[in-house]
Amino acid sequence: MTAPSWKLAGEAKRQSILDAIPPKWRIQDPIPPAADLRDVTGAYIQQFLTPHEVEITETDAMGIVEQTTSGKWKALEVTEAFCHRAALAHQFVSCLHEVFFDAAIEDAKRQDAYFAEHQRPIGPLHGLPVSLKDQFHVKGVETTMGYVGWIGTFQGKKDDPRKGVFESELVRELRNLGAVLYCKTSVPATLMSGETVNNIITYTTNPKNRLLSCGGSSGGEGALIALKGSPGGFGTDIGGSIRIPAVFNGLYGIRPSAGRMPYEGAANSMDGQNTILSVIGPLGTTARSLKLLFKAVLSQQPWYHDPLVVELPWRDEIEQETRALIEQSTAGSPKLAFAVMRHDGIVQPHPPIARALSLVEQTLRDLGHQIIDWTPPSPVIAGDLANRAFHLDGGADKRQQFELSGEDAPAQIIIEDSPSQRTASEIAALNVEKREFQKLYMEYWNKTVEQTGTGRPVDGLISPCAPHAAVLPYKYRYVGYSSLVNLLDYTSVVFPVTHADQTVDVLPPGAEFLSSLDRTVQGDYDAAAYDGAPAGLQLIGRRFQEEKMLTLAEHIGEQVKLRV
Amino acid sequence: MTAPSWKLAGEAKRQSILDAIPPKWRIQDPIPPAADLRDVTGAYIQQFLTPHEVEITETDAMGIVEQTTSGKWKALEVTEAFCHRAALAHQFVSCLHEVFFDAAIEDAKRQDAYFAEHQRPIGPLHGLPVSLKDQFHVKGVETTMGYVGWIGTFQGKKDDPRKGVFESELVRELRNLGAVLYCKTSVPATLMSGETVNNIITYTTNPKNRLLSCGGSSGGEGALIALKGSPGGFGTDIGGSIRIPAVFNGLYGIRPSAGRMPYEGAANSMDGQNTILSVIGPLGTTARSLKLLFKAVLSQQPWYHDPLVVELPWRDEIEQETRALIEQSTAGSPKLAFAVMRHDGIVQPHPPIARALSLVEQTLRDLGHQIIDWTPPSPVIAGDLANRAFHLDGGADKRQQFELSGEDAPAQIIIEDSPSQRTASEIAALNVEKREFQKLYMEYWNKTVEQTGTGRPVDGLISPCAPHAAVLPYKYRYVGYSSLVNLLDYTSVVFPVTHADQTVDVLPPGAEFLSSLDRTVQGDYDAAAYDGAPAGLQLIGRRFQEEKMLTLAEHIGEQVKLRV
Repeated sequence: MTAPSWKLAGEAKRQSILDAIPPKWRIQDPIPPAADLRDVTGAYIQQFLTPHEVEITETDAMGIVEQTTSGKWKALEVTEAFCHRAALAHQFVSCLHEVFFDAAIEDAKRQDAYFAEHQRPIGPLHGLPVSLKDQFHVKGVETTMGYVGWIGTFQGKKDDPRKGVFESELVRELRNLGAVLYCKTSVPATLMSGETVNNIITYTTNPKNRLLSCGGSSGGEGALIALKGSPGGFGTDIGGSIRIPAVFNGLYGIRPSAGRMPYEGAANSMDGQNTILSVIGPLGTTARSLKLLFKAVLSQQPWYHDPLVVELPWRDEIEQETRALIEQSTAGSPKLAFAVMRHDGIVQPHPPIARALSLVEQTLRDLGHQIIDWTPPSPVIAGDLANRAFHLDGGADKRQQFELSGEDAPAQIIIEDSPSQRTASEIAALNVEKREFQKLYMEYWNKTVEQTGTGRPVDGLISPCAPHAAVLPYKYRYVGYSSLVNLLDYTSVVFPVTHADQTVDVLPPGAEFLSSLDRTVQGDYDAAAYDGAPAGLQLIGRRFQEEKMLTLAEHIGEQVKLRV
Repeated sequence: MTAPSWKLAGEAKRQSILDAIPPKWRIQDPIPPAADLRDVTGAYIQQFLTPHEVEITETDAMGIVEQTTSGKWKALEVTEAFCHRAALAHQFVSCLHEVFFDAAIEDAKRQDAYFAEHQRPIGPLHGLPVSLKDQFHVKGVETTMGYVGWIGTFQGKKDDPRKGVFESELVRELRNLGAVLYCKTSVPATLMSGETVNNIITYTTNPKNRLLSCGGSSGGEGALIALKGSPGGFGTDIGGSIRIPAVFNGLYGIRPSAGRMPYEGAANSMDGQNTILSVIGPLGTTARSLKLLFKAVLSQQPWYHDPLVVELPWRDEIEQETRALIEQSTAGSPKLAFAVMRHDGIVQPHPPIARALSLVEQTLRDLGHQIIDWTPPSPVIAGDLANRAFHLDGGADKRQQFELSGEDAPAQIIIEDSPSQRTASEIAALNVEKREFQKLYMEYWNKTVEQTGTGRPVDGLISPCAPHAAVLPYKYRYVGYSSLVNLLDYTSVVFPVTHADQTVDVLPPGAEFLSSLDRTVQGDYDAAAYDGAPAGLQLIGRRFQEEKMLTLAEHIGEQVKLRV
């Protein structure tokens, strides 16, 4: 019996990605199995690189543009170094959907020529390689979004005139800014999953511990950046899809409010569903890299090119005010106040995440910031509302894409099939329920002014992003911690805190469970398997508070790092 | 045969509105019929008022707060004057749904006491009476929104605990600002109509020409402010409902982009439909009054109290930049550029509106501004998209409200009945089509930079708001000029230009028609009946350009006034 044609098509595409890697960068010797070598970051990947390639690729995005915009590093050397490292990363963990190094190298050469002629950079991202989740259209490159049925098409349409020529708005802006585009990263088919699995690349694993998932849906971004095969890239988030892979890979990532970053012209799942909008945001190794990318995109005035973007430039004054509050905060006179959500009443975090929460809380206290109680409106209602928003079409979009090729649906997609769709009246009623919940949460937040002692409501909420560190494959069971933020349309920045450590992260004996789901999730914990997994948290702020949250996350991340 | 109970309930409510007017303000002698006395503004209404009442009520909102916030006028005298004049207005044109003068007078006394004690105003709207469309909840006052079935309920629910006690967010903010609330104004049942007709007040006529409609759906606002029974008030707009009554009554009105003004806690039709959102905006006799109200509401930081409001304070710098451009613009070196939409290719404006367009175009040319051609993306597509958005639920919400009492649907509601609702997939597809149209329009706007000579795309688009001056009853047939703005989510300010004049506004002989609808609309024109009707236009700007559009509309309105 031969394999079905969709399987062959997926395999052929998988092979074509490998084939796009130049032979000089192909790894000849077999890579040790994950059981023997969990962590392929650091020394393992460095052995394949020259010292100068290591120097370049281990510099963060901000550090790189300091070199490239001043002419100290050439766009070409930086681009080649990242292409090489990305090629290695893909061979370790299957994190790429598209490889277009040749085009990148041509772009880099043009940039160097521009710099040589004008003695100035093209823009603030001159010569910076930027990776993109496989939702963004780049000319000459396919977008499959993990669907076999999208191979050789434009978003599943064979004869669409945009095929091969169209570019997403973000891509246009990144080019204006001087960024170099060189690869697109893996996603789970449908994008509605906390892991990255599809019938093309199969499964993207976690480079810090290959027994684990890289997260999803911007999973390839997370894995690639963790391996420093990219200094920063853009993902999307409708229920946690930027933040989950960022925390699973020890990175920073921001889920901005809807209307801040330009989604125009990107492929999407359930496009047009506007109860909870998917949003774009950057992932990177440092908070300042996220800020660099975010601010650079806003400098392009995306509100003149994307009908859903709000005219809201980067607000330096908010960044400065936040820095001033950080500097002035002391134990005797706290100027910043945070709440800590130790659990949401539904699922408790695993020991590594619980420890990360304690670490951050103690750090905040040590810095003189105020910590207040947090008993918010019901997370059960929030979870139910988000889940209903994701299921409005009863899985119709998902089925349509899978039917293009006849492929089997990969595991771990959170959208269940339903025989009927929601009607206009039902959707309107859900939108009202959602708005009422947002109002309730907003007023709860306002009311914290009575507890903070700063004269303002709480400045941020520290919360798990997922109940676990980077998850064991097929064990992602609860997205409530991340989807809460999407439901509220708040700003959330995830930041690295620590790593799972089997010597200290043990389940307390005789633990009580919050729910049967909690019992299952706690039962999934395996201290030995999780050992070494990145354990990060999210800092949640109010709507459109990106400047403040990036500034605070940088502060907290740096201070935690000093103490871990 | 007795009348059906809904008819009796509507009549009883109608009578209760009249009964709430103090006997001293009831008009004893019969009011002449409209055929004998079209215009009840100006001298006619003044005869019932004292000179000081006339002085107060003929001062615009900005002028009033100059007096009240400096203590020159007492809140009480201002409030009593407007209550009196509003009472007269209602007796002329049936423009009120709720009258609560006693509460207003108590509030005004408290404000005067506050001023006496603290020697400062409560806020920037201290002592300013503000009228509200009957969608806003005020404690102790009903909201019927023109539905008989809502009498004695909270939004149709008999036992809702919010009944009689709940206040909309805008109301809370207006109270904080020092405004005095004293009446709520008439609307068409469903709000989806360009005229104001329901089974409670029956029909609100136009005070400048009572043969005509006051417009809708914020029709009572338009009529009341035209009679100077209010210095300014708030309406809502999903297809033209602020702008239509504003132009029909010779007023200014702004339809801001969604997310600028707080809709939280207001009653609505088809609440939760979020393809095209209804928005709130002020109406008034001057552009500076609109600015006063708009800026005052933003000073309350509504983004902390309404989940759908964007954190976008009033931007003084945009206002200043716009003023500078106005001052620097000269024929030799235009600094501002406008486009003029003489018609949209579907329905031509009647002669008074065509003349208004010419007047404004000539004024702009005289001022040295650039005028460019305008051949935008298809208004047919725009009209179809908006119409489909309004019909997503197939009329289900409308029917549900009418069924509460069994009342007959009043005429002129633009929502037709359909046996089925749209599904989630169909709504998502419409949202995508809409976004693609918005993108097309946006890029068309961007491209005008090639024509303007100012270095920027066109600053504003002058367009009809309706094909006619204040319309003859039951002749409102085409909302495409206003609904285009809602579809695009652009900012539009309407402003008064001139009045229909039967001596000059005649249909040209042998006119050609753009469509069969155009033929019908042109056939409706009756120069004699329309004589004296206000003929205004709209100035359309890009999304979130409220500061710029209010500044430009003030400039254009003032300059046109000098020339008419």
